[in-house]
Amino acid sequence: MANVGTIGTSQITRTFLQACIASRAFKITHVYSRTKTKAQQLIDDLFIPQATADDDLDNFLSAADLDIVYVASPNSLHFQDVKAALLHGKNVIVEKPAFVTTAEYQEIDRILKEHPELHVLEAARHLFDANYLAASEQIKAFPEVTGATLAYMKYSSRFDDFKAGKEPNIFSTKFAGGALYDLGVYLIYAAVDWFGLPKQSTYSATKAANGIDLHGLARLHYDDFDVALIFGKDQQSFLPSEVYAARQTLWLDNLGQPSIVRRYDGPAVFQDLSKPSTENPLVDEVNAFSLMFANRDEAQFAHYWQLTGQVNQVLNQLRASAQIKFESDQN
Amino acid sequence: MANVGTIGTSQITRTFLQACIASRAFKITHVYSRTKTKAQQLIDDLFIPQATADDDLDNFLSAADLDIVYVASPNSLHFQDVKAALLHGKNVIVEKPAFVTTAEYQEIDRILKEHPELHVLEAARHLFDANYLAASEQIKAFPEVTGATLAYMKYSSRFDDFKAGKEPNIFSTKFAGGALYDLGVYLIYAAVDWFGLPKQSTYSATKAANGIDLHGLARLHYDDFDVALIFGKDQQSFLPSEVYAARQTLWLDNLGQPSIVRRYDGPAVFQDLSKPSTENPLVDEVNAFSLMFANRDEAQFAHYWQLTGQVNQVLNQLRASAQIKFESDQN
Repeated sequence: MANVGTIGTSQITRTFLQACIASRAFKITHVYSRTKTKAQQLIDDLFIPQATADDDLDNFLSAADLDIVYVASPNSLHFQDVKAALLHGKNVIVEKPAFVTTAEYQEIDRILKEHPELHVLEAARHLFDANYLAASEQIKAFPEVTGATLAYMKYSSRFDDFKAGKEPNIFSTKFAGGALYDLGVYLIYAAVDWFGLPKQSTYSATKAANGIDLHGLARLHYDDFDVALIFGKDQQSFLPSEVYAARQTLWLDNLGQPSIVRRYDGPAVFQDLSKPSTENPLVDEVNAFSLMFANRDEAQFAHYWQLTGQVNQVLNQLRASAQIKFESDQN
Repeated sequence: MANVGTIGTSQITRTFLQACIASRAFKITHVYSRTKTKAQQLIDDLFIPQATADDDLDNFLSAADLDIVYVASPNSLHFQDVKAALLHGKNVIVEKPAFVTTAEYQEIDRILKEHPELHVLEAARHLFDANYLAASEQIKAFPEVTGATLAYMKYSSRFDDFKAGKEPNIFSTKFAGGALYDLGVYLIYAAVDWFGLPKQSTYSATKAANGIDLHGLARLHYDDFDVALIFGKDQQSFLPSEVYAARQTLWLDNLGQPSIVRRYDGPAVFQDLSKPSTENPLVDEVNAFSLMFANRDEAQFAHYWQLTGQVNQVLNQLRASAQIKFESDQN
């Protein structure tokens, strides 16, 4: 079993650690935070006394009992954390979006080519979800796809702070936040996974005064059809996601965390394709990643790394289209 | 009770006549068709022997026992039928979209100004639906609207004929068919009724070889928010429609014919605002129109005629944006 250590102490890190514990996919050996007490708190909360709390990044990354670093720092810090981990000879699992700019992806790609024994996996958890995979199977079985509407829009509790004059990371251009990078990325992942790299991508965003995108509508153009993406963090939506095949429709209740999948064969006839969901939404992903590392599955690593690059490319095309600037652009 | 006569023998005319019978809102005195046997068939089918079957338009429009003409000919013929009825001194109820070009609306507007005793009502039936009105009331009660997604996309059985090489009216530029004019008009009506005339409107359409739009994505830009419209006739969608007010969401199961209306106050808490629906979806409209004529409600007539003009304006802006040409443009 590979040894994993984490960077970041927010909710997603906690959920990732819980998924590791529940699945026994990885052994947790280190928890890093700039504030040691925060790391120790996480270790205590999750009853993993075998793990070491670290507050020195270099010491953490140099640990002999560390194979894989899970990076869940703010988006704008992913690049430097991933790079540091690789240069210390560690593999990486990095939260989506893995990188902000295409230059960041290219630099990591260069390092990986120099270190073919190392791998970076982007934690696009929904791609490993049993219900997502049921949807993927049906989409492949359709004789033709004629279009799709993918939606993910949730009112963020941190938007209340933002409206009150604070600037949480997720609503900050400094930390590469915003609707596109936080929630749109789920939809782009699904579109690129299902349909490949679009020919052209446009994004019409509603922005806040600080330049961050709050919600919007993106369109991915393919040779034979288009995909509409609806996402946002300042409004609450209950829209399902749909993939169209003329008379037939693949329907998911919630693409970010699907629990119901249906194939409609007409206005009133459907086939239920739903699978049981894991309680912790990261368990399927953690199991899949664990298998890839255990089997040194180079084909899978290469496939997902390419997907990371394509998603990064679409994110940046959409960002350019909506003229969203991040501090990372200046590096 | 006002006397009504109909032009057109398709399903919508049948439903309109049934609504008149069920509601006793109007007395049906004439049924016109270019083919007299078709008109007589409709009279026989609906058990309305008091009605006269006409096949001469001038005779039909000159009948003394005719107050209101219901026009449900193909879209491109509405203008000439409405104009002829007005010039014969008859009031008009015309199916949506009432007119194809803005020139058509302006010409009828000119005639109405010369004949202030006559009125034209566009049959935007969903605006009079009890569930639509429940939604409208909630939207007015929201402290602010932050956006909306309105959807109406149904696979048309006539699309099978179209794919087989035929050209049904509804998929023909000659008859001003297509997704925007057939189904998009419902969404535009709701948007203009709820939010007023948008500042700018854009439409990205997927078209067939004959130039007709099959489905697409439109965006209406208002001062403080945007509205996304999703509609089509070559794909089957189950998307609800939503109006956003930050944390709160107004949700309709189907804007074209709503039966469930909810106000969500967060991700998992909702208030059911649904009203019982009439079996015939035109009954609420027919009752509302009947009252307007009975009361000679000039304020209401003026309100809906202005709405007709605004919807016509948005339809034409969207059509220009997607470069959809109709034969009517050459008149």
